[in-house]
Amino acid sequence: MRTQVGIIGAGPAGLVLARLLHAAGIETVVIEARDRSYVEGRQRAGILEHGTADILRAAGAGERMDREGHRHDGIELRFDRRRHRVDFPSLTGGRSVMVYAQTEVCKDLIALRLRDGGPLLFGAEALAVEGADTGRPRVRYRHEGRERTLECAYVAGCDGFWGVARAAVPAALSRTYERAYPYGWLGVLADAPPSHDELVYARHDRGFALLSHRSPTVSRLYLQVPADTDPAAWGDTQIWDELERRCATEGGGRLTRGPLTAKSVTPLRSYVHEPMRYGRLFLAGDAAHIVPPTGAKGLNLAVGDVATLARALVAHARTGDTALLDAYSATCLRRVWQAERFSNALTALLHRHPDATPFDDRLQLAQLDRVATSRPARADLAEAYTGRPLDGVL
Amino acid sequence: MRTQVGIIGAGPAGLVLARLLHAAGIETVVIEARDRSYVEGRQRAGILEHGTADILRAAGAGERMDREGHRHDGIELRFDRRRHRVDFPSLTGGRSVMVYAQTEVCKDLIALRLRDGGPLLFGAEALAVEGADTGRPRVRYRHEGRERTLECAYVAGCDGFWGVARAAVPAALSRTYERAYPYGWLGVLADAPPSHDELVYARHDRGFALLSHRSPTVSRLYLQVPADTDPAAWGDTQIWDELERRCATEGGGRLTRGPLTAKSVTPLRSYVHEPMRYGRLFLAGDAAHIVPPTGAKGLNLAVGDVATLARALVAHARTGDTALLDAYSATCLRRVWQAERFSNALTALLHRHPDATPFDDRLQLAQLDRVATSRPARADLAEAYTGRPLDGVL
Repeated sequence: MRTQVGIIGAGPAGLVLARLLHAAGIETVVIEARDRSYVEGRQRAGILEHGTADILRAAGAGERMDREGHRHDGIELRFDRRRHRVDFPSLTGGRSVMVYAQTEVCKDLIALRLRDGGPLLFGAEALAVEGADTGRPRVRYRHEGRERTLECAYVAGCDGFWGVARAAVPAALSRTYERAYPYGWLGVLADAPPSHDELVYARHDRGFALLSHRSPTVSRLYLQVPADTDPAAWGDTQIWDELERRCATEGGGRLTRGPLTAKSVTPLRSYVHEPMRYGRLFLAGDAAHIVPPTGAKGLNLAVGDVATLARALVAHARTGDTALLDAYSATCLRRVWQAERFSNALTALLHRHPDATPFDDRLQLAQLDRVATSRPARADLAEAYTGRPLDGVL
Repeated sequence: MRTQVGIIGAGPAGLVLARLLHAAGIETVVIEARDRSYVEGRQRAGILEHGTADILRAAGAGERMDREGHRHDGIELRFDRRRHRVDFPSLTGGRSVMVYAQTEVCKDLIALRLRDGGPLLFGAEALAVEGADTGRPRVRYRHEGRERTLECAYVAGCDGFWGVARAAVPAALSRTYERAYPYGWLGVLADAPPSHDELVYARHDRGFALLSHRSPTVSRLYLQVPADTDPAAWGDTQIWDELERRCATEGGGRLTRGPLTAKSVTPLRSYVHEPMRYGRLFLAGDAAHIVPPTGAKGLNLAVGDVATLARALVAHARTGDTALLDAYSATCLRRVWQAERFSNALTALLHRHPDATPFDDRLQLAQLDRVATSRPARADLAEAYTGRPLDGVL
């Protein structure tokens, strides 16, 4: 099989890229190792930056998001049994975020792709990217029991942290940066309406907690736990009690409880692979970088990467100019490092580190007090949370 | 000897307190272990927050400061061979700092104290504070070869980190918080006009450097060095070369050189003692807390403490109300922890930590990039650097 741009992975990165390129008349093939129901069921954060929502709209994938998603104009911080709201529009000149689950984003994009008629192969496992540094890169993959080859002008590696695309960059040209955190998130889905209109980020002596939304009837809730925690060791009542304890304020803070329908533990990790391009292979999203989930930047980075890549590929197709393709890695990495910085800082602000000294604890509380009492500090957080404009990408 | 308020220590904290209380008709005795020339020669930072300058003016000690000091409307950050100015007035609604050496502040305050005619005993070494939890606290001290006692209604411990006042707080009631940094500052005085109009804070792979001012003809310069560095091991030319290397920008960056007249290494330390009050003993300035010198908050915290204490003592003398005295420790500590937070963050932003991973280095550069490109992040820094208003103290 031949195509202009071979896209490995049908997560948000690969699907948005396919859609943007299709709109510009560039032919793509998307191959995805998993089946459709798995991709559509994968639970991830669902907080879309202002600019991410704009890109989805530009890709024609904003209709249901605008109808069913919820604009959030702030978040609530809780510490010392107090609550402090961070109001986004007044701090950022009108920006906000959209809460719309990644699973729904994927469903919308898959439906669009199938409507576009472009190839989207589920159960097609990429085995290797070959010839990335030649004029004719190829993706070897297995589909319906047979090994096949996709010949392309360009390859987009949108296959996540565990994918094969990154491995095609020679180690001698690669630099990796990482941090592992000594804690993880116990995440649950609950058939219970969210107890609060906005997301609640709580710092407590017993650890971090987050009250989030999946829909008007489903809550998504998280507890900081040691990294090696077995989710089965946590009973439902124990989870609800612990969430209430960590989020309690002077004014009370009972949560609306309901049956838990999913329970899992996610490790927290920061990771960056440089460069994000090797010859005609471009890495995007989790294939190139991982952020801890605090602040929910993963999906936003992925969409920013492929919007940058689509613009560069379209410019090259139209004018033959490779300047934007050549700038791809550096352009993305600047934004990636800002997201790494923010995700790390928000994680450090809210989690209890097992090695924290009493001095560290006081500094953490002082930083929270700073956010609560200083408008510039709050504006800094609000700007990073809602995301800065993706200059020139749209 | 008897007095209303016994003040241990004739640094800025003790001298400002004496002056503010004298103006309100409250009698004080100041005892100082060192002699006058030592106190007037002690080199310390000389960056006065907006509010600190206001307090010195209110204390009648602003005349020469306003004549000979220099208002600074910004600082320059250097990293990656680039320069970024942080403009204070436009980011803070008109605030700035005053560069006026602490030695000059002390000379002015000593002259005022002597003119006021209040007792100021040099060479009077405090030995202990006794009876702080009784109605009749006493300071035992040695003066002119004899042990003496100062009986007071209140004692102000303004005797610095190595002083005896803090030791009067029973250990069972004390909590201390601290951090030692694995590096120090090699500081030099140079008979050379400052090479730049404003202070230059440089982050370099070889370590931090700071170009500061003492006067129009004297530069104060600093280099990050390992904590155990012997200043004599650094030759003058080596120091100038290293300063130029760390502060170099694309546009060049030669420094105006001149003879070095002083050379010393200061360790960096964060320290807080809680509470800052025990009975009728009040701790102020370095006696209660130490910040690393980055950001120059030490003098400002000391002046803020004693302004808070003076207001409380005057209110009590006039109305008998102890509310402000009772709130003294909590009022000061909130500001202290903000200064600890800021000093620590600015230190972490600019110094190379020997254990930093490549990921840490990239986060540090991303944070500097954030300050350079985000107005809220820059405003956060500017607000903390120039200091927030001391609500109600003046």
